[in-house]
Amino acid sequence: MKVNGVHYHSIWYDEANPAVRIIDQRWLPHEFRVVELNSCASAAVAIRDMWVRGAPLIGATAAYGMALQMGSDPSDAALENACRTLRATRPTAINLNWALNDMHSLLLPLPSSERAAAAYRRAAAICTEDVEINRNIGLHGLTLLESIAATKKPGEAVNILTHCNAGWLATVDWGTATSPVYQAVAKGVPVHVWVDETRPRNQGAHLTSWELAGHEVPHHLIVDNAGGHLMQHGKVDIVIVGTDRTSARGDVCNKIGTYLKALAAHANQVPFYVALPSPTIDWTLQNGITEIPIEERDGTEVTHVWGRDNHHTVRQVQISPDATPAFNPAFDVTPAHLVTGLITERGICAATADALSTLFPEHREG
Amino acid sequence: MKVNGVHYHSIWYDEANPAVRIIDQRWLPHEFRVVELNSCASAAVAIRDMWVRGAPLIGATAAYGMALQMGSDPSDAALENACRTLRATRPTAINLNWALNDMHSLLLPLPSSERAAAAYRRAAAICTEDVEINRNIGLHGLTLLESIAATKKPGEAVNILTHCNAGWLATVDWGTATSPVYQAVAKGVPVHVWVDETRPRNQGAHLTSWELAGHEVPHHLIVDNAGGHLMQHGKVDIVIVGTDRTSARGDVCNKIGTYLKALAAHANQVPFYVALPSPTIDWTLQNGITEIPIEERDGTEVTHVWGRDNHHTVRQVQISPDATPAFNPAFDVTPAHLVTGLITERGICAATADALSTLFPEHREG
Repeated sequence: MKVNGVHYHSIWYDEANPAVRIIDQRWLPHEFRVVELNSCASAAVAIRDMWVRGAPLIGATAAYGMALQMGSDPSDAALENACRTLRATRPTAINLNWALNDMHSLLLPLPSSERAAAAYRRAAAICTEDVEINRNIGLHGLTLLESIAATKKPGEAVNILTHCNAGWLATVDWGTATSPVYQAVAKGVPVHVWVDETRPRNQGAHLTSWELAGHEVPHHLIVDNAGGHLMQHGKVDIVIVGTDRTSARGDVCNKIGTYLKALAAHANQVPFYVALPSPTIDWTLQNGITEIPIEERDGTEVTHVWGRDNHHTVRQVQISPDATPAFNPAFDVTPAHLVTGLITERGICAATADALSTLFPEHREG
Repeated sequence: MKVNGVHYHSIWYDEANPAVRIIDQRWLPHEFRVVELNSCASAAVAIRDMWVRGAPLIGATAAYGMALQMGSDPSDAALENACRTLRATRPTAINLNWALNDMHSLLLPLPSSERAAAAYRRAAAICTEDVEINRNIGLHGLTLLESIAATKKPGEAVNILTHCNAGWLATVDWGTATSPVYQAVAKGVPVHVWVDETRPRNQGAHLTSWELAGHEVPHHLIVDNAGGHLMQHGKVDIVIVGTDRTSARGDVCNKIGTYLKALAAHANQVPFYVALPSPTIDWTLQNGITEIPIEERDGTEVTHVWGRDNHHTVRQVQISPDATPAFNPAFDVTPAHLVTGLITERGICAATADALSTLFPEHREG
C-alpha cells in the first residue's frame, strides 16, 4: 500500500542497498521510520518489542531473521539457536511457529554453504505468498461488502467495524481484515470504517486510522467501549477482524477485546467475520479457549499511553496512580459459535472443523 | 471517604469559610485540587466540563448551583433561568432533572427573601440523603459479596469487576458500585477489584484506582477490552456497576462499554448487578434503549489522552493522526434482561417493572 504516494511493504529485502528493512511501527502515526534489521537478534527484538506486529508480519520477520542468521553463521547449532530465539519472542501468533518450522525443514537438510541463499529466497517467497493470500482474502471479502451495499440506497456506505490493526501493516501488504475494504474502495463500493482504538497499545488509533487516512477511506475512530452501542443502534453492517491463531474447529484468537465485539454482534444480528490466512490456522488445536497460550504483557502498557504532545514530541504519559498495578492479557478467544464466517484465501467458510477441512483438505486428519 | 487520612465529601458547604467547595476531579489521580463554586454559572461549568461527574454528584452540584443563584438573585426569573442553565449541562443523568425539579418545586412557592436559606438547607439535605442512600446500597450489596465469599476458601478474595467510576467521587460519599466493596473491607471480607480503565475519559484509571489505592483495597487496572477474557476464564465473581439513568422496567444506562460487560457476564454466567440509588430511576421511561438520550461528547476526548509525563507535568497527548475524526457517544444502555439484579437503598430486586414498583410503591402508576 502507499505512504505519501510511494508504494511500501511492511518488510522487504532492499536489493539496491542490500539489507532487510522494516517500518518501525512504534512511532506511527506520528513519525514514519524505516529501519534495517542486521541480525537474527535484531529481528527477535523487533518482534518482541513490537516494532513489527500482526501475525502474518511476525511470520515474515521471523523468516528474515532466520535468513540473517544463515548469512552470518549457517551452522546447525546457529540454525537451532536462531529458531529457539525467534520462537520465544511472542507466544500467541501461530504464524511465528509456522514460518520457523517452514524455514527449519527447508534449511536443515541443506549443506551449510547453501543455507543463506535458500533462506533469503524462502523468506522473500513467504512475503510474496502473504501478499497473494491477502489479495485473495480481499476479493472474497469484497463479495460480502457488495452484498450489503446492494441492500442500501445508492451511495450509502457499508459500515464496517474492525478491531486492532489487521491492515497492511500487520501483513506484508493489503492486510487481512482491511483487504476487502481496500478492494471495495478500488471498485467504487462506498464504505465507512469504525476503527476501535484497541487499548492498550492503540493499534487501531495508531495504525489502522493512519492506513485508512493515507488511502482516504472514510472512517471514525471510536473507543473500544463504543461498538456495542453502535451495533445496538444499527450503525454497524458487518464486523471484520483479523486473527493471531485460529483453531481447527474455528475458535478465533485475536487481540484482546475481539470477544466482546463478537458477543455484541451476535446479540444484535450483525455478521461477524474473521479474515484468516491459512498459515494462521493451528491444525493441531481444537479448543481455542483452553489450548491457545495467551500472552501477558507488561502492565505499563496499560498504565502509560504513547502519543504526540502539542510540541509534536512523541512521549508517554501515565494515566493511573503509582500505587495501582495493571494486568495485561494481550489476546482473547472468540468461540466458533459466535463467528459468522471465516474469509480465507480459498473462499469463505463456516467456523467449523468440517468447513475448514473441506476448504483445506491437505490438512484433513487421517 | 479519606484522602491522605482526612475525611472528605466530593462536594460540601464549608461553614467555617462560607463557600461551596468541590474536588476538581479533572486533575486526579495526579493532583488533588479543591475549588470553590461561587455562582450558578460556575456550577454549570463544573458539571458540563466534568470537574464533577457521576449521576448522584451531578444532582448534588446542581442543587448547590440553585442555592448559589438564590444567594445572588432569588427572583422568579433568575430561578427559572438557573434551572434552564443547569438542566442544559448534560443530557443523560436523570439525577440532574430530579434535583432541579426538587429544588424548583420547593423554592418557587416561597417568598424570594426565604429562597436562599431554603435552597442551601435543601442542597445540604440532598447531600445527606445521598450519603445515606449509598451507605444502604453498600450494606445490601455486602450480602452478595458475603454469599460469594462463603463459597470460597478462607482468605480467597471475591473478584469484583467494575466499570467507570461509581465510587465515592461519583456521589457525595461511599459511591454506589464501590459502596459494597468498602463495606466488605470494613467487615474483613477479602475482595479484589478489576478496574476497567473506561475510555475515553479513563475514570476507572484516574478515579476508581485512586479511590481504591487510597483505601488500600486490592485491585488491578485493566483495559476495557479485558473483561470478557477474564470472565471466560472464571476470574470474575461478580460485576457491579453504577448507572446514570435506569428506566422503570430496569434498562440501565451507564458509561459507554457497560453493555459489553453485561453481554460477557451473561454469556459466562457471571452475576451482573447495578447499584441504583432511587433518584437515578426514571419512572417516566420504559424502553431505555430508544428513550434515554445518549450524550455525544467531543471527539478530542477519544483522540487525546490526559496523563502525567515523566517530569510530573499533567498534559495531554494525541494518539491518532490529524486526518482521523472520532465519534464519542458517552453512554450505552444495557437491556434489563442482562441485569441479574438492582441494588437499591431499600434492598436488592430484579430488573423488572414489577420488582421496582414493589420496592418503590409510591411510584406505582394509577
